Amino acid sequence: MTTNTTNTTNTTEAPGAPGATQTPAAAETRAATAAPGNTRPPHTADGGPQDDHAYVHGYSPAEAQRLGDQADTLAELLHAGTAYPPGSRVLEAGCGVGAQTVHLLASSPGAELTAADLSADSLDQARARVAAHAPGAKVTWHHGDLHELPFPEGSFDHLFVCFVLEHLADPSAALTALRRVLRPGGTITVIEGDHGSTFFHPDSTAARETVGHLVRLQADAGGDALLGRRLHPLLADAGFRDVAVRPLTVSVDGSRPALVEGFTRRTFVAMVESVRADALAAGLTTAAAFDRGIADLHRTAEQGGTFHYTFFKAVGINP
Amino acid sequence: MTTNTTNTTNTTEAPGAPGATQTPAAAETRAATAAPGNTRPPHTADGGPQDDHAYVHGYSPAEAQRLGDQADTLAELLHAGTAYPPGSRVLEAGCGVGAQTVHLLASSPGAELTAADLSADSLDQARARVAAHAPGAKVTWHHGDLHELPFPEGSFDHLFVCFVLEHLADPSAALTALRRVLRPGGTITVIEGDHGSTFFHPDSTAARETVGHLVRLQADAGGDALLGRRLHPLLADAGFRDVAVRPLTVSVDGSRPALVEGFTRRTFVAMVESVRADALAAGLTTAAAFDRGIADLHRTAEQGGTFHYTFFKAVGINP
Repeated sequence: MTTNTTNTTNTTEAPGAPGATQTPAAAETRAATAAPGNTRPPHTADGGPQDDHAYVHGYSPAEAQRLGDQADTLAELLHAGTAYPPGSRVLEAGCGVGAQTVHLLASSPGAELTAADLSADSLDQARARVAAHAPGAKVTWHHGDLHELPFPEGSFDHLFVCFVLEHLADPSAALTALRRVLRPGGTITVIEGDHGSTFFHPDSTAARETVGHLVRLQADAGGDALLGRRLHPLLADAGFRDVAVRPLTVSVDGSRPALVEGFTRRTFVAMVESVRADALAAGLTTAAAFDRGIADLHRTAEQGGTFHYTFFKAVGINP
Repeated sequence: MTTNTTNTTNTTEAPGAPGATQTPAAAETRAATAAPGNTRPPHTADGGPQDDHAYVHGYSPAEAQRLGDQADTLAELLHAGTAYPPGSRVLEAGCGVGAQTVHLLASSPGAELTAADLSADSLDQARARVAAHAPGAKVTWHHGDLHELPFPEGSFDHLFVCFVLEHLADPSAALTALRRVLRPGGTITVIEGDHGSTFFHPDSTAARETVGHLVRLQADAGGDALLGRRLHPLLADAGFRDVAVRPLTVSVDGSRPALVEGFTRRTFVAMVESVRADALAAGLTTAAAFDRGIADLHRTAEQGGTFHYTFFKAVGINP
């Protein structure tokens, strides 16, 4: 495995926002000036990092906005039940721009959090996001590859890995590398989506095909947009025990206008739309067919429409 | 709309099983001698009943066993939160052979339950099942079409409708007819699956196509195996208010051997297998292709496999 980045670690204390007090509830409310989202590059087939531009969702401001929307809309669903005791040593592996980091800090304000990412740019954005959303929070920032973390064995009590494995060419190797830095008896929590879990009303072949193009592009980039369904065997095979995986299904209909806007439109449809140019460049579809699929996805967010997607949250223990 | 059955109502008190005491927990354990399942015929395009042989899943002993397995394996998931007060008047519309009736009785032992079905044969089986699983339970049995119930307006405090709408040509008409017999302020609870919610690991095009044949056959029979996703608009359009739909996702992996056997193999795969002859007769596939799909579905129940399916539970109020 090769790496083209340098492992560097530093600790910063986020400055308090003048005149602002931050509560966990406030931290879960999407700020009007949402920081860019939780982006990270995928890995090549040999497990090494690629250039940032290969990240399947891109690094545009719209994509960053989308990831912020996703993290904040779903924070309660994804982070419920995840709270680490004061003083416990927690590693967020693949923190990206800190979209989940702020929610971790809100749920576990006394934990000693280390947040690691491959991208220096993303870490800079994560620092800014934490400063804005969780002023006073103390985070150790680490720049490096999660396959080659420089920490001694058993350095952490808990690992948190959210929307990371789906972008890796060899998630098993990543989990094995992560388990090395987890103490015996420590826990790992992994959250992933699964685009194959998507269904909606009105049903539409065009919309399903358009979602399929995103799955295909992510596979071409070395990832797996259908990884959620594999979490149990992945963690078990990597040596974790007592692996328990829970489905977290988001079901959106007219009774949930905040999810219609925050999840269906601004998270999911925006994510699919973001690969339009790549899907056309790859010859997967025509502009007309892609746009018909997007229009049909938008239809599911209108009167009488419904939209459904399942995330998975896995917890395992290092023997 | 036409009907070829007669509305008849009678009340029986199920005899106690000699020497046996029945607890709610015991009632939710699958009996070794499981009664046949929750079968019912679909409706034709004009809303009238068809001959029993048109029921998409068939009426074989294997299918009956499958429905019993399904009801008992899923009882906790589907019935959680559904308990009616003593003395409340509850109608189970489309009780079939009583697969859900016994669980209703376990959760709401003091309710005044009326169980209605179009099929006299199914009602006979439901009586026997209740006698075996809930001895002493008092049920009013009604033989008739749920589109033309003879009860006065507002006769019931609560309606319970499970795995019924998916087999009807016009579920909206059925819901409107049902709402007539519900008192103002009374509730309706509807549970449906959605075969389009199915996904699994290892993924398999052959398996997905085989599931698709079942969806197609159910549509050809006038039903909709993808109805779960439509529950919110269906109930809202039928005039219910405060409609809330919850997804109930069954996620099966190696940590849940009871679900691997009871749900993946004996409920879902068995259901798909049961339409093999019909799928071949309809020219939808070849024997080899169908069997490859079934083999791939079985693979999801083996070591390292996972299987996922979403039911929906809707509750609404009659204004």
